[in-house]
Amino acid sequence: MLIDKIKNRESGIILYGITPPKMGTNEERMREISAQQIQRIQAEKVDGLVIYDIQDEATRTSEERPFPFMETLDSFSYSEEYLTDLAIPKIIYRAVGKYTQNELEAFLKNASSEKHLSVFVGAASKAQDVNLSMEQAYKIKSQQENPLLLGGVTIPERHQKKGDEHIRVFNKIAQGCSFFVSQGVYDINASKNFLSEYYYYGLEHNIPLVPILFTLTPCGSVKTLQFMKWLGISIPKWLENELKHSQDILQKSLDYSEQSWRELKAFADEKGIPVGCNIESVAIRKEEVEASIELLRRVNL
Amino acid sequence: MLIDKIKNRESGIILYGITPPKMGTNEERMREISAQQIQRIQAEKVDGLVIYDIQDEATRTSEERPFPFMETLDSFSYSEEYLTDLAIPKIIYRAVGKYTQNELEAFLKNASSEKHLSVFVGAASKAQDVNLSMEQAYKIKSQQENPLLLGGVTIPERHQKKGDEHIRVFNKIAQGCSFFVSQGVYDINASKNFLSEYYYYGLEHNIPLVPILFTLTPCGSVKTLQFMKWLGISIPKWLENELKHSQDILQKSLDYSEQSWRELKAFADEKGIPVGCNIESVAIRKEEVEASIELLRRVNL
Repeated sequence: MLIDKIKNRESGIILYGITPPKMGTNEERMREISAQQIQRIQAEKVDGLVIYDIQDEATRTSEERPFPFMETLDSFSYSEEYLTDLAIPKIIYRAVGKYTQNELEAFLKNASSEKHLSVFVGAASKAQDVNLSMEQAYKIKSQQENPLLLGGVTIPERHQKKGDEHIRVFNKIAQGCSFFVSQGVYDINASKNFLSEYYYYGLEHNIPLVPILFTLTPCGSVKTLQFMKWLGISIPKWLENELKHSQDILQKSLDYSEQSWRELKAFADEKGIPVGCNIESVAIRKEEVEASIELLRRVNL
Repeated sequence: MLIDKIKNRESGIILYGITPPKMGTNEERMREISAQQIQRIQAEKVDGLVIYDIQDEATRTSEERPFPFMETLDSFSYSEEYLTDLAIPKIIYRAVGKYTQNELEAFLKNASSEKHLSVFVGAASKAQDVNLSMEQAYKIKSQQENPLLLGGVTIPERHQKKGDEHIRVFNKIAQGCSFFVSQGVYDINASKNFLSEYYYYGLEHNIPLVPILFTLTPCGSVKTLQFMKWLGISIPKWLENELKHSQDILQKSLDYSEQSWRELKAFADEKGIPVGCNIESVAIRKEEVEASIELLRRVNL
């Protein structure tokens, strides 16, 4: 279903995003966590599950990371060993710099194109040591027979500085990407600027548009807010003030995220740009995870 | 009425802004123009009439001015000689750098504090030769007995780069300004950022907020759009694309301006920040002027 929706360039795809449990979590706890995740997600209307592949982004910024970096279980192994009971397709993220050619090839052979999709993620910065570059990863993918659907990452905030995010997206489409997942959206203006340029460039060059899935992420504390900023999510000053001064930052962020989604959807619908969303929680606190589920429900209304 | 509204720090003040006819216009044409302006404005619900004092801003940017700079009639003389039949208070702009101390003093003596208000405008850039600095002008004003209400200019776009526009506004309040008129608003985010910082700073330092009047200006052609950009109005890329590709750029800009105003008003109302608007036409084409009147009606609904 998700795969068809993407191939048909449909609007309204809804994903949910999780991070695998941290490395070293014992088997019993792992079963508990995954059972809870399955239960939560099964109850909702979701087209697919994004499983992130966390990489240490310390080279990207000199600022201290608000939450410590923790190695997590491999996203594909976690999906295969713990989440098979969840029937929806899994979108396995691959931070390609972490893998050797053999490793990436093995993943691309083993992932079932009916149950899985993948999103390749590049290095967090040029200073990061990588095994494989994005170019190499796309080449490896193109040499595989497995018709696994491939997606890319888009960062509308990057557009504000460089103005070429739509070109990056079209380049990735040319390299085989058939959908895109954005970084967390707190700056609608940046997303609208990107969508607008994406739309008019596609129109002018007669290139069909693929779905852009905007990531929405609740924010339940000032620390989460700092973490989102650390991750590179741009947050307008007024919104940062609203959140910081709010009696209920989590509820406020939910309201804002819902409203952002509706505004982006309306903007895209008017032009026929296929958009969808990917809802996640960057924090692992129970309240914030539950809020992400509430957001999923609101978006589905 | 306008004066009371400002003194009471009321929300919802609506101004209309005009530029005097260009220097050298003959008497007959001048009567025609002013009669038409009076007729147009009298028919609408407006609290006051802004009369701009145009200065050559060539030192501010090396880009070519899309419309040639033309010296206009002095705003106070125009008001006194041609607009006395219009009963609403006039807000006389003074680009203070253009005047000598004697000239500014004479104006401050002659303007009736019941019929007039004034807004002092600083140099367009540091490179501009000036007779009086803003400091000097404020000092001259403070030494006058005439209780003429004084307003200031605020440029939310400046906040995006420097982050201190609210501090500038509070400094001007300390120097006697009791209301502010913004530059044309096409970037709501910048205006919300400014309002938010203005609000929280006032709250923290226990300074009552004075009305902020946002300037709304229809855009009827790509050339007007270029001119607005030349004037330093920041226009989000998506909106620029929408306007450029629109079948009816004027109508689109009206819709957007109305929506911007409602969004800013809702944002301000929630916090009790007094806001209002100032509607103008930067272009002199009949259609654009008429559109500015339509915008006035929409805002009054």
